[in-house]
Amino acid sequence: MQLHKRDVVEAATSLLDNYGIADLSMRRLARELEVSPGALYWHFANKQQLLGAVADRILAPVGTDDSAAGDWRDRIVSTCGQLREALLSHTDGAELVSASFAAGQSKLMSDVLDRLSTAASEAGVAPANAELAARTVVYYLLGFTADEQSRMQWDAAGADVVRTVWTENPSARFAFGLRLLIDGIAAETEHVLEKTPKVRA
Amino acid sequence: MQLHKRDVVEAATSLLDNYGIADLSMRRLARELEVSPGALYWHFANKQQLLGAVADRILAPVGTDDSAAGDWRDRIVSTCGQLREALLSHTDGAELVSASFAAGQSKLMSDVLDRLSTAASEAGVAPANAELAARTVVYYLLGFTADEQSRMQWDAAGADVVRTVWTENPSARFAFGLRLLIDGIAAETEHVLEKTPKVRA
Repeated sequence: MQLHKRDVVEAATSLLDNYGIADLSMRRLARELEVSPGALYWHFANKQQLLGAVADRILAPVGTDDSAAGDWRDRIVSTCGQLREALLSHTDGAELVSASFAAGQSKLMSDVLDRLSTAASEAGVAPANAELAARTVVYYLLGFTADEQSRMQWDAAGADVVRTVWTENPSARFAFGLRLLIDGIAAETEHVLEKTPKVRA
Repeated sequence: MQLHKRDVVEAATSLLDNYGIADLSMRRLARELEVSPGALYWHFANKQQLLGAVADRILAPVGTDDSAAGDWRDRIVSTCGQLREALLSHTDGAELVSASFAAGQSKLMSDVLDRLSTAASEAGVAPANAELAARTVVYYLLGFTADEQSRMQWDAAGADVVRTVWTENPSARFAFGLRLLIDGIAAETEHVLEKTPKVRA
């Protein structure tokens, strides 16, 4: 039976959901699929590439609806809301996508970054800084969500979680930090405007 | 010979620096110290506690100088600068401290969070939101630095790094995102001021 790339990604995503990122190895995956590890390397040169494909599988729901609508603030909020939701839908989703993002292996994270960069540009951030502004938002989102998800998973495992008050109303807490960033982006625009000589009457 | 807690932490930090976080296990550490794993559990109930102690060892240089001086903006910048430098000084430092922060196991990260919360309060952020503002800064810092450090380590290992342009001038890039956050915190204050009835003449 031929091993399709899509089937490998599905099996890897199931391993992740059931056992977590620590158990997602090429060897374990080959055993689940009842193939030799070599059969996996036909599709993925290394584990980084496999994780990138799983990241893109997790991120598939992001940006498929009307996240392109609205002004730049609305678009940052909706893109980030979808991204956070996608990460929370899979065990260790935030950790896996963070790793793939850092390794430059997730095409869909690059798309998210482009979308946020475009929004920052529209807000008036200088072109040279638009990706930096987008990355600032992404680092916040990945850090917040990885933390939130660890706590959720420890709670589910019955572990003692330090400062459990932090787990209350995570969506409102997430939104607060995002608002800080959006306000910061808006202020960045004002910095630029202040530096620009006013030539219009 | 008696095994001191400090010696365990030093040996764990050496393991980290030489081999990275993936090789920092209780078993490996016991082998390095030529003791039984049980001897380690006398000092640390589990690996999380050990990582927390290593995190605090890494963070020891943070906040020991004049980071308490200056206005709230200066203090955020100096605390974050010291924190980033400490993380970059140890292999996988950002990843290890992130994990310990999420697990609530690093006392010195709690101190950093308190210091940033105090700065946010002084900026005028409402008490209920000061820790959220501080966490937003910390998530950005940890995400940025983990990414920066992965790229540095891949470069050092001779691996192909996607989009190497991103590795240019990381300090200026880091400062840009931090400025967005500081401007966002300043704007948050203005939101609060707008909502406050002006009673003074």
